[in-house]
Amino acid sequence: MKKSRLVVLAALVVGLVALAALPAAAHVSVNPSSAPKGGFEVLSFNVPNEEADANTVKVDVLIPTKYPIASVRIQPMPGWSTAVEKTTLAKPVKTDDGDVTQAVTKITWTADAGGLKPGEFDLFTISAGPLPTKTNKLTFKAIQTYSNGEVVNWIQQTVKGAPEPEHPAPTLTLTAASSDHH
Amino acid sequence: MKKSRLVVLAALVVGLVALAALPAAAHVSVNPSSAPKGGFEVLSFNVPNEEADANTVKVDVLIPTKYPIASVRIQPMPGWSTAVEKTTLAKPVKTDDGDVTQAVTKITWTADAGGLKPGEFDLFTISAGPLPTKTNKLTFKAIQTYSNGEVVNWIQQTVKGAPEPEHPAPTLTLTAASSDHH
Repeated sequence: MKKSRLVVLAALVVGLVALAALPAAAHVSVNPSSAPKGGFEVLSFNVPNEEADANTVKVDVLIPTKYPIASVRIQPMPGWSTAVEKTTLAKPVKTDDGDVTQAVTKITWTADAGGLKPGEFDLFTISAGPLPTKTNKLTFKAIQTYSNGEVVNWIQQTVKGAPEPEHPAPTLTLTAASSDHH
Repeated sequence: MKKSRLVVLAALVVGLVALAALPAAAHVSVNPSSAPKGGFEVLSFNVPNEEADANTVKVDVLIPTKYPIASVRIQPMPGWSTAVEKTTLAKPVKTDDGDVTQAVTKITWTADAGGLKPGEFDLFTISAGPLPTKTNKLTFKAIQTYSNGEVVNWIQQTVKGAPEPEHPAPTLTLTAASSDHH
């Protein structure tokens, strides 16, 4: 009995290691993957089209507000329209331009025509700052909508040491503040 | 006699040093020039137009398959059409989304209208991964076609210590895997 349990456990461990060792498939990710606390950063969300017969026609990115970012701007993108949702903050963010009482909470890119075709990817880019100083990472949930109606929610938390989830949320690691962070 | 030989030798040495010190001309290159093994990377091929009276109207990039890359996607580019060639792999690549049996081997960008004019360059961008873990560099042969029919093959190997070839193939150096790779 004891031995058979050990065998099962051993098989499980081997299975998990094998799983962890498999290369990841393409995911929605944020580039760069890390940026200094307190800085302004250009962040590009890399969105792969993973369908064989459908186009990506809409991308939503949620901006976390637990540690609000005073300034979030969108880079215009040919072939895509953008929309922004703002929320009034419980506690205003003080900046050298005065108090910021509202923050961008959601950005939506909608394809004007075909969107992203099979085999394509694109970069959906924002400029954001100052990045929070009191957390070590920011998670940007992303929602990818295809022309066939399929919706992929890239919202799963990545847990250190655990196998990567199937649809992880893009995560930005915040590093020690640089001395020069305009 | 001996003295004149010395003078010739000295002139030769000075000449060689001068040659080695000459800055390289513009080449088709890949940006970034290095990336972590096992990661996903956005790679831009920087293509300069080097003709005075002709446009660059087509760019082919060959994706090496000795160490296959499971996912290769193209960023759409206004003014250019793209085409992809795939090849069935001798040995499938295992990923956490299942086995990948086909890999992209060639990408072609064709100008819809004028292409790249004299004095211009552009970035032709793909997203690729996971990058191989068992080699220290990837060579992407590139073929540049001009509107006057001239074809430039950027396919020469760069040999460490040897003078740079006239038309080197864009080369990506693979660095030690990062712990967080995408």
